[in-house]
Amino acid sequence: MEAKSQTTSEKYAADIASIREAQVRINPFIHATPVLTSETLNTIAGRKLFFKCECLQKGGAFKFRGASNAIFSLDDDQAARGVVTHSSGNHAAALSLAAKLRSIPAYIVVPKNAPKCKVENVMRYGGQIIWSEATLQSREETAAKVLQETGAVLVHPYNDGRVISGQGTISLELLEQAPQIDTIIVPISGGGLISGVALGAKSINPAIRVLAAEPRGASDAAQSKAAGRILVLPETNTIADGLRASLGDLTWPVVRDLVDDIIIVDDKEIIEAMRLCYEILKVAVEPSGAIGLAAVLSNSFRENPAWKDCNHVGIILSGGNVDLGVLWDSLSK
Amino acid sequence: MEAKSQTTSEKYAADIASIREAQVRINPFIHATPVLTSETLNTIAGRKLFFKCECLQKGGAFKFRGASNAIFSLDDDQAARGVVTHSSGNHAAALSLAAKLRSIPAYIVVPKNAPKCKVENVMRYGGQIIWSEATLQSREETAAKVLQETGAVLVHPYNDGRVISGQGTISLELLEQAPQIDTIIVPISGGGLISGVALGAKSINPAIRVLAAEPRGASDAAQSKAAGRILVLPETNTIADGLRASLGDLTWPVVRDLVDDIIIVDDKEIIEAMRLCYEILKVAVEPSGAIGLAAVLSNSFRENPAWKDCNHVGIILSGGNVDLGVLWDSLSK
Repeated sequence: MEAKSQTTSEKYAADIASIREAQVRINPFIHATPVLTSETLNTIAGRKLFFKCECLQKGGAFKFRGASNAIFSLDDDQAARGVVTHSSGNHAAALSLAAKLRSIPAYIVVPKNAPKCKVENVMRYGGQIIWSEATLQSREETAAKVLQETGAVLVHPYNDGRVISGQGTISLELLEQAPQIDTIIVPISGGGLISGVALGAKSINPAIRVLAAEPRGASDAAQSKAAGRILVLPETNTIADGLRASLGDLTWPVVRDLVDDIIIVDDKEIIEAMRLCYEILKVAVEPSGAIGLAAVLSNSFRENPAWKDCNHVGIILSGGNVDLGVLWDSLSK
Repeated sequence: MEAKSQTTSEKYAADIASIREAQVRINPFIHATPVLTSETLNTIAGRKLFFKCECLQKGGAFKFRGASNAIFSLDDDQAARGVVTHSSGNHAAALSLAAKLRSIPAYIVVPKNAPKCKVENVMRYGGQIIWSEATLQSREETAAKVLQETGAVLVHPYNDGRVISGQGTISLELLEQAPQIDTIIVPISGGGLISGVALGAKSINPAIRVLAAEPRGASDAAQSKAAGRILVLPETNTIADGLRASLGDLTWPVVRDLVDDIIIVDDKEIIEAMRLCYEILKVAVEPSGAIGLAAVLSNSFRENPAWKDCNHVGIILSGGNVDLGVLWDSLSK
């Protein structure tokens, strides 16, 4: 298993062909996000960093790529019945927006305790909110009921080949914008983003390293890789609210075979990275979005001889949806 | 005087030729900043908006364009003696950075009451800080003393043809990135930015409108235009700390002749625009940087029949250096 380090055809839920198809399909709708660089951050990191700003994507996160690929892959009959998801985060907003662009309904099951700014994003893009209790059981039951009543298509936030292919378009863009990149650091949660990025990037350049960044309080992916099977944590504890999901059966094989390492960082490092994004790069990222910068600055990465020659590092700033109420309150005083 | 609405050669401190020269000179050093768009903000504004993100410029503000044009215009003998300024804001950081790139000293006179984040920016880029009292008199005297002792060249933050030409390179970039633009809204303070932008843009497309955005508590430019001469306010009162300067004798003729109107906005509107930049565009701007968005959303702009057909509006997000300490304090709790 360890020897299978290259992408081979039809092994995984997505491949370079499905990623290229996704790019053609979604390009009319997505933003080609800019790659930012900073001499100050290069100096701090001791390497050249290339920030792929998916926080500047429509809906404020990379999720719009996968969601729009899924929605524009549907045939007209399927599409007419709409789509459902029981994620309450960036995927829900992205799915609402993509559904709006195709003029079909998006039913979003939202637990009653969901953060206000995430719910507002769904509403802004016209998603139809269906409230559930906070438990996973209630969310799944509610979603099943909506599926039955509407005949809508479930679009899972990450365990879906169309979604993984959509996220993979990031690699096509990034390696065109900064072909000198030898390493890409990607936040890991359910694994949809890193699966797409790894499949895309390693098909273009098999020598490229793909590293995951994961919070210490939700390190199920690192533990899964160590155990050789998907592990699910009984609970998670991290400020990175977008990184609490567990791997799926479609993302696990890619993470197992193609992700070269997983770098664990503390919440304190995430907050410091987030501060650097605002103060030096001048982009608004959420904690989950800043974790790649936290990883490249962490001691565990810097001191690992395996990554000594990672000289041109792509960092995916995956999202920017964060509640800044405290800031506006202080300015309005 | 009112009839002279077009750019004619050698009338002003800069022209399209000096702006094009500046572009060739500074292009190896500056970031070509991205232009962002947002359907959500287009819907709110009722027009198509094109955000020129100078907050993503090196040093976090457009000031690096003018500063680097000034510094790389110096001959080697002049340059060796270094540069001086008594601005403590974004110009000081930009001048420090440009001087560092030419390996010459930058002497920055900073009043003792300057905001911490601005001083940190100067120090980050290697500027040599010389403290003065908070009064303009003390700042000017201290700068004069440094000039005398070092033989360094004074680089004024805006009343300088080289600086104006550098800022004008924004128009060359912007109109290449978004040629459909029919209107540009620019923050106004000392007038260096808007002079460069107006001279550049109106030379390329004489029909383009250039509008200034100014805070109600520092509306000296609007009052100056109404009076037909430079007026200096006895005091200013606005959250937009970068917009408190008065026009200079080199910027005033351009503002008088080429700026089509000045839109006055309240601090409350500036904070709301800043919030939209963070929450929708996902870029970190300072209050002065967000004022263009505040202007396009203001009632005085929307209800003015003269601007009814401003359908494609370029907005210069001029800078992103703001103290977000309250945000990090709240996240670290």
